[in-house]
Amino acid sequence: MSQPHRLAPGPVDLLALPTRSDGPDPELGRELDKESGTQALLDLADGLGDLQERLFAAGRGGSPRRVLLVLQGMDTSGKGGVLRHAIGLVDPQGVQLHSFKAPTEEERAHDFLWRIRRALPGPGLIGVFDRSHYEDVLIARVRALASAPEIERRYDAINEFEQELVAAGITVVKCMLHLSADEQRKRLLARLDDPTKHWKFNPGDVDERALWAEYRLAYEIALERTNTEVAPWHVIPSDQKWYRNLAVARLLAHTLDRLDPQWPMADFDVESERRRILDEDPVG
Amino acid sequence: MSQPHRLAPGPVDLLALPTRSDGPDPELGRELDKESGTQALLDLADGLGDLQERLFAAGRGGSPRRVLLVLQGMDTSGKGGVLRHAIGLVDPQGVQLHSFKAPTEEERAHDFLWRIRRALPGPGLIGVFDRSHYEDVLIARVRALASAPEIERRYDAINEFEQELVAAGITVVKCMLHLSADEQRKRLLARLDDPTKHWKFNPGDVDERALWAEYRLAYEIALERTNTEVAPWHVIPSDQKWYRNLAVARLLAHTLDRLDPQWPMADFDVESERRRILDEDPVG
Repeated sequence: MSQPHRLAPGPVDLLALPTRSDGPDPELGRELDKESGTQALLDLADGLGDLQERLFAAGRGGSPRRVLLVLQGMDTSGKGGVLRHAIGLVDPQGVQLHSFKAPTEEERAHDFLWRIRRALPGPGLIGVFDRSHYEDVLIARVRALASAPEIERRYDAINEFEQELVAAGITVVKCMLHLSADEQRKRLLARLDDPTKHWKFNPGDVDERALWAEYRLAYEIALERTNTEVAPWHVIPSDQKWYRNLAVARLLAHTLDRLDPQWPMADFDVESERRRILDEDPVG
Repeated sequence: MSQPHRLAPGPVDLLALPTRSDGPDPELGRELDKESGTQALLDLADGLGDLQERLFAAGRGGSPRRVLLVLQGMDTSGKGGVLRHAIGLVDPQGVQLHSFKAPTEEERAHDFLWRIRRALPGPGLIGVFDRSHYEDVLIARVRALASAPEIERRYDAINEFEQELVAAGITVVKCMLHLSADEQRKRLLARLDDPTKHWKFNPGDVDERALWAEYRLAYEIALERTNTEVAPWHVIPSDQKWYRNLAVARLLAHTLDRLDPQWPMADFDVESERRRILDEDPVG
């Protein structure tokens, strides 16, 4: 199946990559809008649910396979919306969410990957990182939270780390939710206009926005340096929430489809278990 | 709002409590079947989503309030189905699931409530326990995993513990998924008949089923002893999956509705933040 948003190898120019869906949908062969796109998302639920259950069952049967979805993006790009509307389609028992905040003192005392390793999904699960080890080369670079040589070291450390994950049976799916500066302005203003959204607003987001160009550069470098064959990046057009949710859900569905997890075989004798149930008759 | 499945105080006779829905639905005023009951569940999604978001927002705003939903029931009673279909309606970011297995060696070295305390939801979250501290007076009683005086001590310890939770702002909602022995037989046999369900079948479940009457008694004692005013039990008819899911989702919705969580006030000056956004103009 097509991976329309997979990032091509080489230098990255985010301004040249779309932040909106464009033209007829390659899977459905027609132009989508908010209504039909939202319906297309809901139409994925049954297939995704079946694939997720097979992944989970295979994990119970001893398969080491699992998926790690990494979500990165500027404030208001919609990491939370993806969790709610795309990941929310899946049985919550099969999902392990982890939201990374600024590192604690204990976390800062360890290598930057220490806390990441502790949050990895177990076999059969879909792990989702809302922010990730990429913050350690994004805000860390823009805000100079680490030295230049340390940042430089981290790109290679991330690639080695992700290669190790893939070797352990973890399919790593990395998404950058690509938002335009104009759309971010609209979303921040919308949060201010609506008192039920004030709790989502953080004045610090405006400070970060002032560094928009620096963040764009940090993303471009990080995307280029860590866009490996085993763990490639996807740049998801995110100015339209419905398209962003649909694109990530499709990517997850395609990933599971390619894994093609199998129901495990019974490790007991089916017929003798059936007889045990039929032969005894508890009072109820 | 009505709480049709709230357990009355006093001695408990599970055989006298329904395992199926019965008569016209008190909320909708008409008989429900699988199709209309499933639709009624889906119709709860928007309201539940709004309430959950308000709970979450209030937590961010400093409110200690949170909900703990405790799910207990015999094998195949549908704890997993409730998680998938009822809890699955809610934004996964607002839910904290914990599935309790047989205690590890480390857990057994502590008091039985030790591992429970570590799994409590944070402010603003809906915590869900798939099995719980009640296993320590259920299987522990039936299988004599603890001495009789220790089991006896635990009922009071549980009541004290839950009172402490309530005092800390945790609304404790306890559900026993009430299944008939006949329906369990059907479900176990159905798992054997379908190779895609073999992974859910565990021969140990048949061993537990042979102790059905002992488990019923253990449940009756536990329900009676821990059916407190602050943390009452609900006995959910669970022979019909659609009704079980609907009943638990409604109970959660009613619980949140009674809590009536409020959007927190802005702790910043809205107008000056608006000006900061409009005055600066990143390149994009």
